[in-house]
Amino acid sequence: MEFTLKQKDSKSKARAGELSTDHGTIQTPIFMPVGTVASVKGVHQRELKDEINPDVILGNTYHLYLRPGIEILEQAGGLHKFMGWDRNILTDSGGYQVYSLSGNRKIKEEGVNFKSHIDGSSHFFTPENVMEIQRVIGADIIMAFDECTPYPCEYNYAKRSMHMTHRWLDRCISHLEKLPFKYGYSQSFFPIVQGSTYKDLRKQSAEYIASVGAEGNAIGGLSVGEPAEEMYEMAEIVCDILPEDKPRYLMGVGTPINILENIALGVDMFDCVMPTRNARNGMLFTAHGTINIKNKKWEADFSPIDEMGITFVDTEYSKAYLRHLFAANEYLGKQIATIHNLGFYLWLVRTARERILAGDFQEWKTNMVQQMDKRL
Amino acid sequence: MEFTLKQKDSKSKARAGELSTDHGTIQTPIFMPVGTVASVKGVHQRELKDEINPDVILGNTYHLYLRPGIEILEQAGGLHKFMGWDRNILTDSGGYQVYSLSGNRKIKEEGVNFKSHIDGSSHFFTPENVMEIQRVIGADIIMAFDECTPYPCEYNYAKRSMHMTHRWLDRCISHLEKLPFKYGYSQSFFPIVQGSTYKDLRKQSAEYIASVGAEGNAIGGLSVGEPAEEMYEMAEIVCDILPEDKPRYLMGVGTPINILENIALGVDMFDCVMPTRNARNGMLFTAHGTINIKNKKWEADFSPIDEMGITFVDTEYSKAYLRHLFAANEYLGKQIATIHNLGFYLWLVRTARERILAGDFQEWKTNMVQQMDKRL
Repeated sequence: MEFTLKQKDSKSKARAGELSTDHGTIQTPIFMPVGTVASVKGVHQRELKDEINPDVILGNTYHLYLRPGIEILEQAGGLHKFMGWDRNILTDSGGYQVYSLSGNRKIKEEGVNFKSHIDGSSHFFTPENVMEIQRVIGADIIMAFDECTPYPCEYNYAKRSMHMTHRWLDRCISHLEKLPFKYGYSQSFFPIVQGSTYKDLRKQSAEYIASVGAEGNAIGGLSVGEPAEEMYEMAEIVCDILPEDKPRYLMGVGTPINILENIALGVDMFDCVMPTRNARNGMLFTAHGTINIKNKKWEADFSPIDEMGITFVDTEYSKAYLRHLFAANEYLGKQIATIHNLGFYLWLVRTARERILAGDFQEWKTNMVQQMDKRL
Repeated sequence: MEFTLKQKDSKSKARAGELSTDHGTIQTPIFMPVGTVASVKGVHQRELKDEINPDVILGNTYHLYLRPGIEILEQAGGLHKFMGWDRNILTDSGGYQVYSLSGNRKIKEEGVNFKSHIDGSSHFFTPENVMEIQRVIGADIIMAFDECTPYPCEYNYAKRSMHMTHRWLDRCISHLEKLPFKYGYSQSFFPIVQGSTYKDLRKQSAEYIASVGAEGNAIGGLSVGEPAEEMYEMAEIVCDILPEDKPRYLMGVGTPINILENIALGVDMFDCVMPTRNARNGMLFTAHGTINIKNKKWEADFSPIDEMGITFVDTEYSKAYLRHLFAANEYLGKQIATIHNLGFYLWLVRTARERILAGDFQEWKTNMVQQMDKRL
């Protein structure tokens, strides 16, 4: 993997970059649509590629490990082939889902015992076996196994957890050295900064993570319920420490405004279920604010979903029609809203990149943040 | 509307025809995908058009009347504009759903009292207001309001019901005369033959329906649980009486085999929820038999869904991937299976038409019926 900085913004810490992997180039800043269990919910792979056009999508190790399971993924020749996606994939480490989804999890130094949210069966994740699982899944970028602390988090817990995450990181790295690439292409490994909302811990963790010299670095444990200002404060502290010549990935963030603010702090990569999950609940993100398409006010509004027309759904369907599909509980409504939201998120990061390259990112961002902070 | 017979098969009663309306040409035999409530479930309009390519789809008056309601449809300028479909639409009369879905329905000479299956609200359908509703929906082909008798049905009930359906037909026709087209294009009206599984009633009803000289004629009350042989027997009796120079529509039929057998008896038009509903349950129809994609046997079968490649889903996704989507309850699985099944149904009727024109329909049909009658 190679990362090239193309432009640094003069009025903010925003950067435009280019990340090259064996599955193509990722232009940063980038938003990665979440394809939890080998599918971006309700979206055909060709729509994802042709209409939404992300350079990279995200898969969840926890979900893929449970279904279809690593045996099937290995027989398929990895996730790319299994799902028919020939561009980049990043997988998380499964840690976050273990903490948020599964019952009776027990975190020990050795690893995490957890029960499947599907059938209650018992499983054990360790830094070592999570590296093995991610080798089999075969994503282009794979993540360290960490503990994602909740918010709020007591200082001493956050500190102990951070140190364990660092020890787990060492185990990930030394185990990966014994595991060759499985499918003939490279996989890059990103460690994760933790430290909850404590400045000193974040600083300490960022320094430790920077010291391992990975190909890219991630910031975890944010967007877990803390106020946006705290998220920005932590992201800034960490970005200022992480190496400039490596991509920075802020995990699980966020709203369109969160994304622009964090781009301004030096973040290059994002993922979040918000555009897809909120779409399925009838919430549309647009450049002029958010729309709750279930509202009666759209019942007889026969104008296009979004005049901007980023994807085909925006102009081929009307607000009234989309509102009807939600009212009638027709799945096509969720499909349309999902394509719209992902199209908008990708437009947002693509345009941010253009503005960084053009040198007027800061003005554009200030204006967009104001515009998007409305309910239509 | 104009109907032109292009070819009559010499070894069966199959016909190839062409139906011209203000929304284009319908080549018969045709299968009409069911778009219950202004959406073919899980399928974008552009996929329906470009991949499945039917000349006509079906909407359900009962469902559209309840949601979005006729006020919205009227403001939209009719169903075509509301849903963004510029080809032909046929609407049923709502009768079938009133009998099968709604609670506490009361059938009287005047019409049918029923409760909405959504909110329990009370409604009253009459031959007259159903014509008014169908004028507002604005389909190219609209159906008479009838009673669809259940199976089995006691002879005297079937006879009384048939006569009421005939009286309702007269009321439909005389009321339609007072209702001009709403949107500048024509709507053709099809009456419906009833008579349950009684030969004498079917004969009597077909003669009555033929006598009104409509632009096309339908056969109702079949595919409601009777054995296929009885369905074929009734369809044959009725087809032999209905005018040869008008299209014949067999409502609610059926399996791929049912469709080929009824084409051989002289039926031109079909609709059924089977390809879409069964798709959502993981059942795929193919030229070589049916597939239950949920079966474990497909778990590691990485071959394309269907080598025939009628639609893009058939070759872009594997059986193992589709099986995984069903196992993980991912909606994309239903979307893929729906496009596959509808693509196959349309291929089936298109190919039947080609074979009729080529003169070897009967041999092809015999072979196809044998092939399709398997579980893979």
